[in-house]
Amino acid sequence: MIKTASIEEEKKTVSLDALYALIQQDLKLVDVLILERVKSEVPLISDIARHIIASGGKRIRPALTLISAQLCHYEGHRHIALAAAVEFIHTATLLHDDVVDESKLRRGLATANELFGNKASVLVGDFLLSQAFQIMVADGSLKALKILSDAAAVISKGEVMQLMTEGQPETTIENYLQVVLSKTAVLFAAACELGATIAGQDRHEEALREFGVYIGVAFQLVDDVLDYASSSSQIGKNIGDDFQEGKITLPVILAYSAGSREEKVFWIRTLAELQQTPHDFEHALLLMRKHGAIEQTIAMAEKYCTRARDSLSGFTNSKAKSAMLDIVDFCTQRLY
Amino acid sequence: MIKTASIEEEKKTVSLDALYALIQQDLKLVDVLILERVKSEVPLISDIARHIIASGGKRIRPALTLISAQLCHYEGHRHIALAAAVEFIHTATLLHDDVVDESKLRRGLATANELFGNKASVLVGDFLLSQAFQIMVADGSLKALKILSDAAAVISKGEVMQLMTEGQPETTIENYLQVVLSKTAVLFAAACELGATIAGQDRHEEALREFGVYIGVAFQLVDDVLDYASSSSQIGKNIGDDFQEGKITLPVILAYSAGSREEKVFWIRTLAELQQTPHDFEHALLLMRKHGAIEQTIAMAEKYCTRARDSLSGFTNSKAKSAMLDIVDFCTQRLY
Repeated sequence: MIKTASIEEEKKTVSLDALYALIQQDLKLVDVLILERVKSEVPLISDIARHIIASGGKRIRPALTLISAQLCHYEGHRHIALAAAVEFIHTATLLHDDVVDESKLRRGLATANELFGNKASVLVGDFLLSQAFQIMVADGSLKALKILSDAAAVISKGEVMQLMTEGQPETTIENYLQVVLSKTAVLFAAACELGATIAGQDRHEEALREFGVYIGVAFQLVDDVLDYASSSSQIGKNIGDDFQEGKITLPVILAYSAGSREEKVFWIRTLAELQQTPHDFEHALLLMRKHGAIEQTIAMAEKYCTRARDSLSGFTNSKAKSAMLDIVDFCTQRLY
Repeated sequence: MIKTASIEEEKKTVSLDALYALIQQDLKLVDVLILERVKSEVPLISDIARHIIASGGKRIRPALTLISAQLCHYEGHRHIALAAAVEFIHTATLLHDDVVDESKLRRGLATANELFGNKASVLVGDFLLSQAFQIMVADGSLKALKILSDAAAVISKGEVMQLMTEGQPETTIENYLQVVLSKTAVLFAAACELGATIAGQDRHEEALREFGVYIGVAFQLVDDVLDYASSSSQIGKNIGDDFQEGKITLPVILAYSAGSREEKVFWIRTLAELQQTPHDFEHALLLMRKHGAIEQTIAMAEKYCTRARDSLSGFTNSKAKSAMLDIVDFCTQRLY
């Protein structure tokens, strides 16, 4: 919906085809392992797990583990299991997240809590997390276990932090970025770092970790924008979902902090008190446009993309590196 | 409330004083570690964690790890951290369990979900589980990690199984025992097995694991009885809580399966449909008495206690062994 002239100029077309071509075989093996693991004599477990895991999504986190391993010339099989563990941690988080957010829709499909109830979502989330740890223990690397258990700890802390800022448009940019780092970026970072770890390339761990952090923050900020500025077909959730759920995201924080007293009252009513009337979303878009909140969020996402590109500078050129740079371009391209 | 003559005859007085005297110092260190770990710059995390961890309870699971380690003549410090990990897994389960059961009271205190809300309970449960894994990773033993991650996987599966039998008094005894094994006994088993593992006494792992399974089932069955046959001061939850929440426990299953058509209708109305009137609980007690459901449950608990005692037969006498036998006696003594 919102396309500024300056953004149009930068437009270029990138796809993730090269990435997925490079990891296609591996990703299939990850899927096989995932489906194997969620097969259960308890039907509710397999139903929910299949629903959430099969419900689309780009498998971007396991893809990052697989491509990072390639970047580090890893030649074994451990990246398959660890990529699956990463996806399990992610889906466990999604299940609990949707319960906490009372979300009804994810990627255009009814959420598990909507279909199966909150109770089942909480418990199957726990089951998926336990599968992740069993996979990691079977892998047998304490270093990989540390990376992912630290990530799980930070994520859960981030979730609680987000709960505490719920309905508070006066949240600072710093606090918001802290939540994004904890909730989203840390798993991207762990996914990437694992590639270097299993390849035994300790000297590249830091760079890949940084790449993950930056691309993770950029993805979240672009998601924030898309919820106010995309067509529903693009991201598979309805535009305005975040607004309807009262989610405090960066565009909101920017519009609120720059807003007049009257505008602040509007944000408080609609997002903190969730008192919304049919034309409020349009008005929200108007206020965001007025203060350039979308453009500022995009600019910040671009900044993180630049940092992500820079963090790969220590790697010599390769197909894997090029595919990872595609991910960076793809991140913001979703906007145009 | 219910004391049969035969039970009175068996009455003897056992306390856990000897046990707690043996592990007093260790248990203090476990508590210090736990409080250290739940200190957080996020107030909601420390508030909830303190509430659930400090809200009494006998720390029976970490106590089992500590005393099992003593039984195996372990002399290091690793049992402290692993006992804390066991307690973290337990409290994480409690938090999610109370959300799923919509419980309002635990050990006589308001549950965390009642005080802080379901959302916070779900997320802080995740946080506590992640702390457990961080502690295990820091401990550095893949064997211990496997024992506890396997336990966590079984527990979450058991929770889902229980959800599926919710409101079904026609559940078979076998299915119910399967849930008890998964939900409760498996963590007791892991807690005990760890004692042998860290002491490097592999040959004792199986026996201690079995001791944990049997004592775990016995504790749960006694808990089931107490909810229909104790005074509230004894267990810190109100008598009749299970009935009010529609929980299907062994006494219910036994009374239901032996009940007339009319009695079955009563159980379905009160426990499956949760349509309860003020005198229903009294009537439930009457039906249980009629069919000897309480006595049968106690007899089954006693059988598991005997198995627990037998599983320690391979250990020579020691203060630790004697304290563990006290735990077995204490388990059923709570009934009298």
